[in-house]
Amino acid sequence: MSVDALVAKIKEKQNPSVAGLDPKIDYVPEFIRKKAYDEYGKSLKGVCEAIWEYNKGLIDALYDIVPAVKPQSAFYEMYGLCGEELLSRTIAYAKQKGLYVILDVKRNDIGSTAQAYSAAYLGRVYADGEEFKANPVDCVTVNPYLGTDGIAPFVDDCKKYDKAIFALVKTSNPSSGELQDLIAGEEHIYEKVARLVNEWGKGTEGECGYTAVGAVVGATYPEQAKILRSLMPKAYFLVPGYGAQGGSAKDVKNSFNADGLGAIVNSSRGIMCAYKKGGWAEEAYAEAARTEAVRMRDELCSIL
Amino acid sequence: MSVDALVAKIKEKQNPSVAGLDPKIDYVPEFIRKKAYDEYGKSLKGVCEAIWEYNKGLIDALYDIVPAVKPQSAFYEMYGLCGEELLSRTIAYAKQKGLYVILDVKRNDIGSTAQAYSAAYLGRVYADGEEFKANPVDCVTVNPYLGTDGIAPFVDDCKKYDKAIFALVKTSNPSSGELQDLIAGEEHIYEKVARLVNEWGKGTEGECGYTAVGAVVGATYPEQAKILRSLMPKAYFLVPGYGAQGGSAKDVKNSFNADGLGAIVNSSRGIMCAYKKGGWAEEAYAEAARTEAVRMRDELCSIL
Repeated sequence: MSVDALVAKIKEKQNPSVAGLDPKIDYVPEFIRKKAYDEYGKSLKGVCEAIWEYNKGLIDALYDIVPAVKPQSAFYEMYGLCGEELLSRTIAYAKQKGLYVILDVKRNDIGSTAQAYSAAYLGRVYADGEEFKANPVDCVTVNPYLGTDGIAPFVDDCKKYDKAIFALVKTSNPSSGELQDLIAGEEHIYEKVARLVNEWGKGTEGECGYTAVGAVVGATYPEQAKILRSLMPKAYFLVPGYGAQGGSAKDVKNSFNADGLGAIVNSSRGIMCAYKKGGWAEEAYAEAARTEAVRMRDELCSIL
Repeated sequence: MSVDALVAKIKEKQNPSVAGLDPKIDYVPEFIRKKAYDEYGKSLKGVCEAIWEYNKGLIDALYDIVPAVKPQSAFYEMYGLCGEELLSRTIAYAKQKGLYVILDVKRNDIGSTAQAYSAAYLGRVYADGEEFKANPVDCVTVNPYLGTDGIAPFVDDCKKYDKAIFALVKTSNPSSGELQDLIAGEEHIYEKVARLVNEWGKGTEGECGYTAVGAVVGATYPEQAKILRSLMPKAYFLVPGYGAQGGSAKDVKNSFNADGLGAIVNSSRGIMCAYKKGGWAEEAYAEAARTEAVRMRDELCSIL
């Protein structure tokens, strides 16, 4: 599903947000953990089954109001093979519910290795004349440090299979400036990367006018977002750092275009752990998540 | 196993090289593929079983002469869950044979997510008082674009569990200069990253004098390697780009210190596909790989 599919879902649900699925085990309500441990043991399998119940409950509570989910691969890889299996179950379930799936993997490598990563998540795997889909998602995040060689194979697959990518440009974390804010010539490194993102996006425009090559721009740097918005008018922005990391709705406004499109704002902990705030029973974790997702949607819509 | 363990194995085998395990299916000799497809079908499972036989043959042929192997995660992720299972089998087999295992994953993320990646590969996973090892390797590669926040969790685990990392500094690919060669102030970005690598390494020195935070420096940029060697005197260099990518033994010399240590040179295709050159029968692929690994060892030793 290309960037058109993402924009269509955003319009349909009138909601420019994405729910992050970064399931730490201590986010999972105790009653779910207990049940899973009783059935599967206090093992990696037990942990993964607990997270599966939790993820499923979250997806069930969110799929009709949010356009997209963003599983963070690290929180699945950390449980080894069990975690990988959990990730693929979670992706399949989200897709079955009609959600656009952005897999946050920040992959990066050169030439044939970048091609292999792209094949793993966006494209197809070929072996002796047979064709396979390994871990099919709609979109992945990528890291630009290796330059065009590392991104071109993903862009090829975006064109071929109607997929999309978001490249890191200005990340939301405190130390993001150590490299990204260095000034080369007249411009910051994040501006140089923005120009590359523009180049990479050429020829990938969807009917919505946006390109398949988007940019990660942290909510915590609203001034930089304003500059980046003008440097990459046709790139969709994936905006982390809203809520738990300190970015407000006002802060993310600069990531949107005048048409009210152009950005999708992520909230992970804010939605997943909504039940831990404001007196919810832990059994109501999914309802709490939905309530927070609605509040976030309404807040974002109010500033656009 | 810390950087001391790597250096000990390099000294023991008198060989500063690492065999890359980047197994594309068309590298695998036909007789192995045929047998695997007959037994498991022309499926992802069949592909992975073919690669397993191939990897095992390579490890058996190399373990007593090379100190380390470097599986490239992309070539396993591309086969989905089967590929992940193949990767963990390959890692376990290599470790059982006494090899130092560098997993090439180039992971990068912020704060608690970087922590999760580090837990996945270097550290431990905790869940309700229990402790698990998910995918234990000796060392991983990381990408520095997010700055210190993204690296510190790995460094913590290096100290705690005697592990090591290699951060991308100057990569071997043609477009690596698009960002890495930009000049900020008086220095190239790769020099700025080199200074960060030095900082990150402080307090991680092993008995060998090198730090647990190494650097990836491509064989294809020998002049830059010379500068980087002086900027990071205590960092071990992982040097890709030798052989198939065009880097010669002379080119990698600049990555070593005067003590003959300080770098480990990778060859993937050159070793894995040695049987495709020079009239080997495909049944002799492992012997051909060993012959090439010995030739590479002798060539590297001759320039040190």
